[in-house]
Amino acid sequence: MSVASHTVPSLASLDHTHAAHARSWVDSGAGHGDFPLQNLPLGVMEIDGTPRVVVAIGEHMVDLPAARDHQALGGLTPATVAALGQPDLNAWMALSAAERTALRHAVFALLSADSDFARRPAPVRDAVVRPRDEGRSVLPARIGDYTDFYAGIHHATNAGRFFRPDMPLLPNYKHVPIGYHGRSSTIEISGSPVHRPQGQVRPQSDAPPVFQHSRKLDFELELAIWISGGNPRGQPIAMDQAETAIAGFGLLNDWSARDIQAWEYQPLGPFLAKNFLSTVSPWVVTSDAMAPFRAMPMARGADDPQPLPYLQGAQGSGLGLDIALEVTLSTEAMRARGLEPQRLSRTNAAFLWWTPAQLLAHHTSGGCALRPGDLFGTGTISGERPDSLGSLLELTQGGRHALTLASGEERLFLQAGDELRITGRCERKGFQPIGLGVCSGRVLD
Amino acid sequence: MSVASHTVPSLASLDHTHAAHARSWVDSGAGHGDFPLQNLPLGVMEIDGTPRVVVAIGEHMVDLPAARDHQALGGLTPATVAALGQPDLNAWMALSAAERTALRHAVFALLSADSDFARRPAPVRDAVVRPRDEGRSVLPARIGDYTDFYAGIHHATNAGRFFRPDMPLLPNYKHVPIGYHGRSSTIEISGSPVHRPQGQVRPQSDAPPVFQHSRKLDFELELAIWISGGNPRGQPIAMDQAETAIAGFGLLNDWSARDIQAWEYQPLGPFLAKNFLSTVSPWVVTSDAMAPFRAMPMARGADDPQPLPYLQGAQGSGLGLDIALEVTLSTEAMRARGLEPQRLSRTNAAFLWWTPAQLLAHHTSGGCALRPGDLFGTGTISGERPDSLGSLLELTQGGRHALTLASGEERLFLQAGDELRITGRCERKGFQPIGLGVCSGRVLD
Repeated sequence: MSVASHTVPSLASLDHTHAAHARSWVDSGAGHGDFPLQNLPLGVMEIDGTPRVVVAIGEHMVDLPAARDHQALGGLTPATVAALGQPDLNAWMALSAAERTALRHAVFALLSADSDFARRPAPVRDAVVRPRDEGRSVLPARIGDYTDFYAGIHHATNAGRFFRPDMPLLPNYKHVPIGYHGRSSTIEISGSPVHRPQGQVRPQSDAPPVFQHSRKLDFELELAIWISGGNPRGQPIAMDQAETAIAGFGLLNDWSARDIQAWEYQPLGPFLAKNFLSTVSPWVVTSDAMAPFRAMPMARGADDPQPLPYLQGAQGSGLGLDIALEVTLSTEAMRARGLEPQRLSRTNAAFLWWTPAQLLAHHTSGGCALRPGDLFGTGTISGERPDSLGSLLELTQGGRHALTLASGEERLFLQAGDELRITGRCERKGFQPIGLGVCSGRVLD
Repeated sequence: MSVASHTVPSLASLDHTHAAHARSWVDSGAGHGDFPLQNLPLGVMEIDGTPRVVVAIGEHMVDLPAARDHQALGGLTPATVAALGQPDLNAWMALSAAERTALRHAVFALLSADSDFARRPAPVRDAVVRPRDEGRSVLPARIGDYTDFYAGIHHATNAGRFFRPDMPLLPNYKHVPIGYHGRSSTIEISGSPVHRPQGQVRPQSDAPPVFQHSRKLDFELELAIWISGGNPRGQPIAMDQAETAIAGFGLLNDWSARDIQAWEYQPLGPFLAKNFLSTVSPWVVTSDAMAPFRAMPMARGADDPQPLPYLQGAQGSGLGLDIALEVTLSTEAMRARGLEPQRLSRTNAAFLWWTPAQLLAHHTSGGCALRPGDLFGTGTISGERPDSLGSLLELTQGGRHALTLASGEERLFLQAGDELRITGRCERKGFQPIGLGVCSGRVLD
């Protein structure tokens, strides 16, 4: 599901790190998968029990503090050098956009085929560039605040239809970015176990509620947006500065208990139905890496309102994202029978009604302070077709029509042993494709 | 507005620190105001530029790291000793309830009239017990997550009436504690300036929305509940353990922009209408200090549902709080004319439908992790009478009937220069009264 016809040159000028022909000396898997030399996402890996800031390259990683200690990274400011020694990416996120770009250039130089570093002694190379399976991914940042938006317009329409058949989209939707605050204490890294929550539900509307394990456990396919430069309370970030306040992107699964949600959500929104777990992918794919894969904002119809001025900068509404997204399901029975995971949905980040810059400008427009390490979810991203929906709520039409899997099993909602995998991939003619990695989780009842 | 008839002996056994006759050797204001020897709330004060953990006594404070350094605090565990040297109360909140009680006993011993410490040399005493105006209050804790509940049933009824005249309280209200996640980055200490937010509003329902400064700036009178011991994700805290996971109580003003709220809040709840600022009082009045002022939970009517078993422990629903709450307004014109602040409302924490233990047990019932330093707001606390309402929304009946102030001015919502002060006071026959201090803020347009 490509929206390549919509793609446009990015705000950020492209540079040598985006050249399609560039290759790394690191021999690490066919084509380096999601993480070729043009990507260089940052993450945090626990290595020998200690969290370290790393960059992914193919199936390897660059241990940035080790690279720094071996004088393998040039042109960094003292603040950048200090950030590499931290146990999380918060200090890196607090750097200026120019400092983050300079680090990208330094890592690119270290890894590119013509690098001087490639000719250094093997023990030095091996201390700096290590197989990724020597570490264990942990959360990239201490998340101060987590905000979940609702910017996927098809999801908002589909979900709204279950509650309000006559008015799926509320009157405010196309005017104001809808979002709500989420829970940062239960955001965990991809792969973390998914415990089915208990909660108060009311299965029959004429009977009292009961407390039981959720029977409507669902996933939500979202993008993660990592926030960099913060703003003091009372000082909004204007549209034209908004992109520099974004550190990068990832994948997010906003696990949801639909039966708990239906009973608790009025009038103040979802609460326990969402805060038992949200899972993020380990890698922060930087704004720089994403530059070739930006797209025009989602097209407005003739009857649709234009964004208010505070949601339009000199570059208009800012740029959207062209990221092909996919979610697969593998059940216990499928794995036992050696069946491949089954694709539930293919969609694209282009179905976001608001651009990342608009989400950020809106969030701060009333003076709300953002801090480096804050996280946004975009909201569930669904396309228009039945095979492009970002949640089981939509795929099963509100739990009414079961999916039949290749194993012959049926699913309305998730069962014990079910494993969800969300992936994201960026392709554009003339550029090396990159990926966002994986956001996965298995349900343990 | 006393609910003394409802008060009951607390869960926590009372001890010598609650004896009404106990007095301190510290000469500090008539009756020591809100902070007599029986209170001993903790806070953090910046002294000579450094944040330090302190305890309030009258108009003085005990500098706890100084007291520790002078061997003036006995019987503390190593974890407690370490917590006193931190720049915030998070480590203190992470202590066990027994450790927090032991610290209370040690500070009580230091300050009580028969203390050995009172006979130590004046320079030592002066290094440990200092006038409070030598410091500046800062936030007591790094707040990980902030949750705002909606447990004030009269407020929920009044606010609901403006939106749904035929069904002010939704069907879920008396069954499930309603709450939502708030923003921790914009929680600030009492006295912080209140900037009127800009935001998207739709003043006329048949015209497009506009972006402008809020014209419906409001306050909300709430209690703050500071969380101590945390729980790992997936491990609920049961009702009978819930009280030990509460470190203490304070006052909270959940400043609100009603016009922004009305336009943005559907379907996911309030967002920018609330996240421009919330103000908390500086002092954490400990669970131990509150023990004499616990009350029976709010009475249920014959038709009201009983709480589900997960909201009832061996002690039933847990204990409520008997705290008399008051909010005053002083305008620029009133101050210029030397008029006293005008009382807008008197209410009581007894009007909370759910006990603190129920809020906490519910919050964790689906597996949500709490961390030391997390903050709950109770939701706005209104009484039943017109002079006991906890917001201007209610006091002006939705902005329709202006209040006339002693200065002759009228108010529907807050104007530039308006200063709000929330106070809380606990009284019970046979006990020394204590107070929660002040939560104030002045509107700066």
